[in-house]
Amino acid sequence: MSGKKIAIGIDIGGTGTKYGIVDRDGNVLFSGEMSTKKHKEIEPYIDELYVHLLELIDKAGGIDQIIGVGVGAPNGNFYSGTIEYAPNLPWKGIIPLAKLMSEKFKLPVTLTNDANAAAIGEMMYGAAKGMKDFIMITLGTGVGSGIVANGQLIYGHDGFAGELGHTIVIPDGRIHEGTGKRGSLESYASATGVRLTSLELLEKSKEDSLLRNISKEDLDSKTVYNAAIKGDKLALEIFEYTGKILGLALANAVMFSSPEAIILFGGLTKAGDLILKPTRKSMEDSLIQVFQDKVKILISHLKESDAAILGASALVWENKSN
Amino acid sequence: MSGKKIAIGIDIGGTGTKYGIVDRDGNVLFSGEMSTKKHKEIEPYIDELYVHLLELIDKAGGIDQIIGVGVGAPNGNFYSGTIEYAPNLPWKGIIPLAKLMSEKFKLPVTLTNDANAAAIGEMMYGAAKGMKDFIMITLGTGVGSGIVANGQLIYGHDGFAGELGHTIVIPDGRIHEGTGKRGSLESYASATGVRLTSLELLEKSKEDSLLRNISKEDLDSKTVYNAAIKGDKLALEIFEYTGKILGLALANAVMFSSPEAIILFGGLTKAGDLILKPTRKSMEDSLIQVFQDKVKILISHLKESDAAILGASALVWENKSN
Repeated sequence: MSGKKIAIGIDIGGTGTKYGIVDRDGNVLFSGEMSTKKHKEIEPYIDELYVHLLELIDKAGGIDQIIGVGVGAPNGNFYSGTIEYAPNLPWKGIIPLAKLMSEKFKLPVTLTNDANAAAIGEMMYGAAKGMKDFIMITLGTGVGSGIVANGQLIYGHDGFAGELGHTIVIPDGRIHEGTGKRGSLESYASATGVRLTSLELLEKSKEDSLLRNISKEDLDSKTVYNAAIKGDKLALEIFEYTGKILGLALANAVMFSSPEAIILFGGLTKAGDLILKPTRKSMEDSLIQVFQDKVKILISHLKESDAAILGASALVWENKSN
Repeated sequence: MSGKKIAIGIDIGGTGTKYGIVDRDGNVLFSGEMSTKKHKEIEPYIDELYVHLLELIDKAGGIDQIIGVGVGAPNGNFYSGTIEYAPNLPWKGIIPLAKLMSEKFKLPVTLTNDANAAAIGEMMYGAAKGMKDFIMITLGTGVGSGIVANGQLIYGHDGFAGELGHTIVIPDGRIHEGTGKRGSLESYASATGVRLTSLELLEKSKEDSLLRNISKEDLDSKTVYNAAIKGDKLALEIFEYTGKILGLALANAVMFSSPEAIILFGGLTKAGDLILKPTRKSMEDSLIQVFQDKVKILISHLKESDAAILGASALVWENKSN
């Protein structure tokens, strides 16, 4: 298959799906985005995705140029090619995604957890180049993670390793609507988590805040950031609180696999030091001495619109059989 | 070095040090134990250990028979051969243990975290034979862990991975005297942790209990067990409470590296179902669906007096340069 030089990368998120065509050097040649949410069934979802991709495939010189498809999705399983019980996706139960897509596209399909895909992307093209031990954390609709140790992605015995977002940071804490579990990292550090923290603090506090002028639906890390840089106390407090919990989870992850760096990606990271400073402080405060002042917290420097697609396409090159 | 058939295994615990001479099949030929605690300085500690081991080495046919020394110790670093800032050991700061011992014994010395050594022992001789993804947890004076993924021990970028005992399970929870951190697994599931839980519950409750007749110093998982099997309500509650916290920590570990099994070792495990049932329940309750009813919790079946020595000696055979 040495004549084939481009791969398809697809990133399935809770809200939207990003797709694109990528060359071996990590250039995203063509890309697009569609809604994940609106498809209650998997088949019409794949049909729509196929239609969009066919256009890009034609632009890129036809299907004969494509070596394979890499897909990153929440709860995506590398071993079985299935998405299983993903709390943030519209499709329930076990979805044989790789099989369905491979039948439709007539191409080999490699699936993994979206954060695992991101980790491979960072290792091939991004902030983790040359690292053998790092943890990738994606802070989006959900919170995902990909763990690399001894230079290898940790899949676990069943392919589901790396669900740091569902680890419990605050026992008996805030309930997660998708899983029914209380106090997981995702209930605090995801987009939904930041919104819930904002609503809670707005209700608890009597302080005036720019956030009081924003509708509930629009409260997210971006609107909170816009208020925080204007000095809004409540907005700053939201980042402090989120960072405290995120830092605690990072400390626990560090004491587990002792990575050289933690790479953060996603909406929340755009708040820069407003979120990084409390996160770093909380992490250092929670670490025992032997781990202190050693672990870098880095923000992914891949172009956000490309990173997810890049990571997913990197799966195709990683897959040694291609 | 093919003529050499036996190895020395040394397990340094917070209270005592176990040492022995082991053949390649995992038979502990000779063994002994001495106090760790009484040596405030490292040099006289190594001197005493040397004197004891010399006797065993003579019995085993002399130093020419010995291929090397494997040492398991809290905060032991595989890469540097140092013990660094071990909260449960009498020696503070960074101790170049492998170097000091190698100079004294004139033998190659391989050091690692005590729980990593135990994990290698379980993989070579015990409950984890044939497993590629498992977590070993030692419940002793401290709580240690060794994580195996993709068939390899996870050392992390600096050799300190596997400090599950110091991960924070109850934010702002019970203080750990050694680390100054609050709410770590070790503050609850170690020998000291069980004693503190017992004291707390005895003080809080007005209920009569067999434990009220036991001196504070003698309150440990064994005395609590003896009361619990007689139906003592408070003793049962101590195991329930400890299991709840341990199970939560196990769930977080499972969602991180998705092991096939968790292997427990140490004093607390002797309470059998009294500790296992609440631990398992709490773990399953905390896991998201994709991990439920999959992960075995196993008790190490290596003879306790031998297991630590076996694990440490297994390091010598694992070390490919020997």
